[in-house]
Order: sequence, then structure tokens, then C-alpha cells
Amino acid sequence: MPQGQPNVVPDDGLTTRQRRNRPLVMVHTGIGKGKSTAAFGMALRAWNQGWPIGVFQFVKSAKWKVGEENALKVLGASDEGGSVTWNKMGEGWSWIQRAPAEGEPSHEDKAREGWEQVKRDLAAETYSLYVLDEFAYLLHWGWIDVDEVIEVLRDRPGHQHVVITGRYAPGALVEFADLVTDMSKVKHPMDAGQKGQRGIEW
Amino acid sequence: MPQGQPNVVPDDGLTTRQRRNRPLVMVHTGIGKGKSTAAFGMALRAWNQGWPIGVFQFVKSAKWKVGEENALKVLGASDEGGSVTWNKMGEGWSWIQRAPAEGEPSHEDKAREGWEQVKRDLAAETYSLYVLDEFAYLLHWGWIDVDEVIEVLRDRPGHQHVVITGRYAPGALVEFADLVTDMSKVKHPMDAGQKGQRGIEW
Repeated sequence: MPQGQPNVVPDDGLTTRQRRNRPLVMVHTGIGKGKSTAAFGMALRAWNQGWPIGVFQFVKSAKWKVGEENALKVLGASDEGGSVTWNKMGEGWSWIQRAPAEGEPSHEDKAREGWEQVKRDLAAETYSLYVLDEFAYLLHWGWIDVDEVIEVLRDRPGHQHVVITGRYAPGALVEFADLVTDMSKVKHPMDAGQKGQRGIEW
Repeated sequence: MPQGQPNVVPDDGLTTRQRRNRPLVMVHTGIGKGKSTAAFGMALRAWNQGWPIGVFQFVKSAKWKVGEENALKVLGASDEGGSVTWNKMGEGWSWIQRAPAEGEPSHEDKAREGWEQVKRDLAAETYSLYVLDEFAYLLHWGWIDVDEVIEVLRDRPGHQHVVITGRYAPGALVEFADLVTDMSKVKHPMDAGQKGQRGIEW
């Protein structure tokens, strides 16, 4: 429940409206629960604005996120709100039509394919909101160069918001982003011996 | 991305399945962004399970949460998934049919009316997921007694998950809850003089 009033008025030559409408890079990091769920909750707001939304799910998971995926697909297909395009690495990125050659491409290669598509979409201004789910891990693991990501995000044209989730967001990304929330675990049922359950964890 | 394996196996006489399916009380607190958005993101998972969802929005706001509200109403009305009932204090709780007497009831009285309805719904097992949005403030302000809330939650029948959002969740509630995430603000555009904008803050 932010108060709605900025703490400072910067001397940047922009009007309040111009400043207000600057597209944002947002990061949800930390080891607590809620990083992705908050990003998908944000997609509800973007949907309500009628914005095209691109979701890029960077870490394979069987039933993880299936609730959000089904819900956002129903919303995207409804008569109201914006469109939703869901790209999932686990099933092979949808734009990769070629059959896998000698053995599957590695997880790392697939992640890079995903990032290349994000770059193409940013250049084409395909979406108004990008959810790069679990993308921070790829930067942390060094699979994708954080400096390149920052350069691409800094130079992106038009009005495109980007939200990146995942533990261990690199310091350079945190430094660059406009909005960063750290989800800290205070307690989790797994600490008390309770496994994840449907409706809650997926 | 929790690992899916509990850290300990408690000696509580329950089977893994029984333990896994225990209904949860979840708290999203802290001063960072994402407390409510993560709760509504969780509602997407519940919706996908076909669960009836009750949202109780305890703090009045004009355009705040309107994205989530519209999206969840479209989902609730769709042929798939669960139902969504959205109760909003700002417009008067929908179940209060009587006209306001001498002057409007106070904000505090309306909040208590909301809590009374939550109690009735818990007793009747009306929903599978309750989103008590911004409810933590009411406890912090002392409008509603935290010990009563804990007692009601502890004794709730059946399989009802409850997620409570808001800054300043009292220690007793944190102590009682099964899952607590603290959303910490690392940085926010308002710190850089940028006001909230549509699609992001509402």
C-alpha cells in the first residue's frame, strides 16, 4: 500500500506524467515464496489494461505454475483484457520448430534460445509486459551474461515493462532495475516437515 | 522453486499425505511490493484446482487491485476452474443490506463487519481459499484482536487455506502461521521520484 507520493522530485527535465509512465524493470528475488506468484499477479493488472503479455518460463517444471498458466490462458482467450503468450522452456520453446539433432539441446542452450527470443520480441515491441520467470537463476549461473541483459533492457524501445524473478539476482541487475523486492522466508511448511501441496505450490 | 522435500520429518503421527494436505495459514508481510499480488497469484492456483475462493478486501482503494478484481471475476465466471467471490469494504460489504443509519459506520466498524463475515464463512466452510487482503493492518491497529483471529483460524473446520496480507503482521500471527514471507523493499520507483502507474500499481 504505497502512499502514492514520491519521496523526491528529481531534476531530470521530465514532466510528472512522463516520469510516471516510464517503463519499468522489476526484480523479485530472495529465497522466500511469492516471487513468481507476485509476477503473475502483476500480469493480472497488465491484462486488465488490455496489454499484450509475454511469459517466458525459464526453468522446467512439471506441474509448477500450471495454475497460473491455465488461468492466464483463459484470461488471454477471453473477450476482455489483453492477450497472453506463454512460452515454456520445459516443453521446448514453441518457436523452435526444428527437430532435436544428435541428442537434445542442453538446458543451457535452451535457456539461451529463450533469451534470444526475448531480445527479438523487445526489439519488435511485441509485448507491454514481459514475465521472465526464474530468469535470475540463469544470470546467477552465468549461462547468460548479466551485462548483456542490462544493455538490452536499457536500450529497449517503446513502453515495455519487464519483470524478472528468481533467487540470487546479480547485484548489477539489482543496481540497474527500477523496482526490486526481496522475498524473505520467515517460515515455510517444509521446515515443519510438510511437503508442497496442490493449489498452494502449483 | 522449493526443492519439494521437507527438511525434517516430524513425529506427529500423520502420514505424509495427511501432513501434505493440512490446510495452511499464510502471511505476506513486510514493506516491499508484492504482498497482495502474490496472494492473488496464489488465487490463480486455487482457481485452477476448481476451488471456491473468497476475497475480502479490507482497505478501501479506488483503483487499487482493480486489475486483480476484474481478472479474477472473469476467471470465476468462466466455464473452467473455481468460483470467485469478491468482497470489498470500500463499497460497503455486499452482505450489508441495511441503509447506513445516522452517518456512515466507521471504517473500524466496517472492518469488524468484514471479519464477522469471514468467521461465518469459515464456520460454514464456504471457501477453500480465503484472501484476507490488507487484514494485517487491522490487527496492527488493534481494530481486531489478534488472539481472537488465531483462535478462529486454529479451530476452523475442514480444509480451508487462508492467506493474510499487509504490513506489520503481529508477532503472534507470524508465530501461529504455517507460511510467512516478508516482502522487503530493496528499491522502488517512488524513491526515484516516479509515481505509481497503471498496469503496475493497479
